[in-house]
Amino acid sequence: MVGIMKSIFEENNRIACMTRETLSRGGVYAVNVLGSPGAGKTTCLINIINNMKSVKPFVIEGDIETDIDTGLLRSMGVEAYQINTGGACHLDAPMMLAALEKMKPKGPGVLFVENVGNLICPVEFELGERLKMLICSVAEGSDKPYKYPSAFLKADIILLNKCDLKPYVEFDSGFFYEGIKALNNTAPVFEVSGKTGKGFPEVAAWLEEKIRL
Amino acid sequence: MVGIMKSIFEENNRIACMTRETLSRGGVYAVNVLGSPGAGKTTCLINIINNMKSVKPFVIEGDIETDIDTGLLRSMGVEAYQINTGGACHLDAPMMLAALEKMKPKGPGVLFVENVGNLICPVEFELGERLKMLICSVAEGSDKPYKYPSAFLKADIILLNKCDLKPYVEFDSGFFYEGIKALNNTAPVFEVSGKTGKGFPEVAAWLEEKIRL
Repeated sequence: MVGIMKSIFEENNRIACMTRETLSRGGVYAVNVLGSPGAGKTTCLINIINNMKSVKPFVIEGDIETDIDTGLLRSMGVEAYQINTGGACHLDAPMMLAALEKMKPKGPGVLFVENVGNLICPVEFELGERLKMLICSVAEGSDKPYKYPSAFLKADIILLNKCDLKPYVEFDSGFFYEGIKALNNTAPVFEVSGKTGKGFPEVAAWLEEKIRL
Repeated sequence: MVGIMKSIFEENNRIACMTRETLSRGGVYAVNVLGSPGAGKTTCLINIINNMKSVKPFVIEGDIETDIDTGLLRSMGVEAYQINTGGACHLDAPMMLAALEKMKPKGPGVLFVENVGNLICPVEFELGERLKMLICSVAEGSDKPYKYPSAFLKADIILLNKCDLKPYVEFDSGFFYEGIKALNNTAPVFEVSGKTGKGFPEVAAWLEEKIRL
């Protein structure tokens, strides 16, 4: 079983590596977007996209079922493609490759790949991204870095969403940041609110800077 | 691969079946508690336990890392046992069996098994429970039954937590209940607030009634 899992990871990462290279050559910078169910991943993407000044956005939406989020993005004029995993708890590199063959995003641009809502399994599967964006929310509580360390360890950028709810929930900011610091000293943390729009100009600017490099 | 997965499920369910029988004989009624990271699983359990009148509670806490929740429960005098999965995204029947061999809960009583925070993978692995309790929160949004149908389909009781946040989030109750109705006509839904305690006397009474049957 361990051997099989090892070869699944190896094959996945080989495909992801090729995808990353193909996308880079075409001027498309992919961002793997991770978070729990209901963290606000799609709302954050909409806010980021609305604040991007110089980069064309594309979105691949990964869900077990439904195309609710893709419909929403398309209604805003965003080029969005739906992957339904039909039960699988994460996207993988072959799914991403198959989507790209149909979607054919034309660079220069940024491709957000919204993974299935899950703080565990998607972390292990590279898709061909240049960076991982982790979205969590104050409503989930401040202990998440301790309970789901891999996600926080591997994130390149962290968004703490639903900050508008801070007055109504018990969120211990000190404990949260201490947990992140113990795992990850490089990823910036942006406090945002998908509802009010707070913090997204800064996130968009950070991403645009990354993409230019 | 499909064959291997099939045999893993079969072996898991065989162990779960034996555990269920052993627990039942000993007068212990097990409840598999499922929910996203930060849905408020532990807080709900504390509220349910505080409202139980006639049944002794036991708790097994499943986490990838940490024993934050177990420490909290023990400080309240609850007999609690920690399983750390060390990366695995769900509990399985062998883990549960190993925990029970150490914990040895003495019935009559109810054993809450708080699964790893994940709305997908834990649904597929029986542990030996008599029923599955699904905990979701208004902060996660009203589209969860559509996006994570298996969890809602297999639940025997559903708690909609953090109802105190309703004035501050956009939660479409009609859409939420419609989604559940399409999947599951038998599980009752209780609107609760782990913060204010609202709704938990009813949940505790429903559970005590089930356990008596």
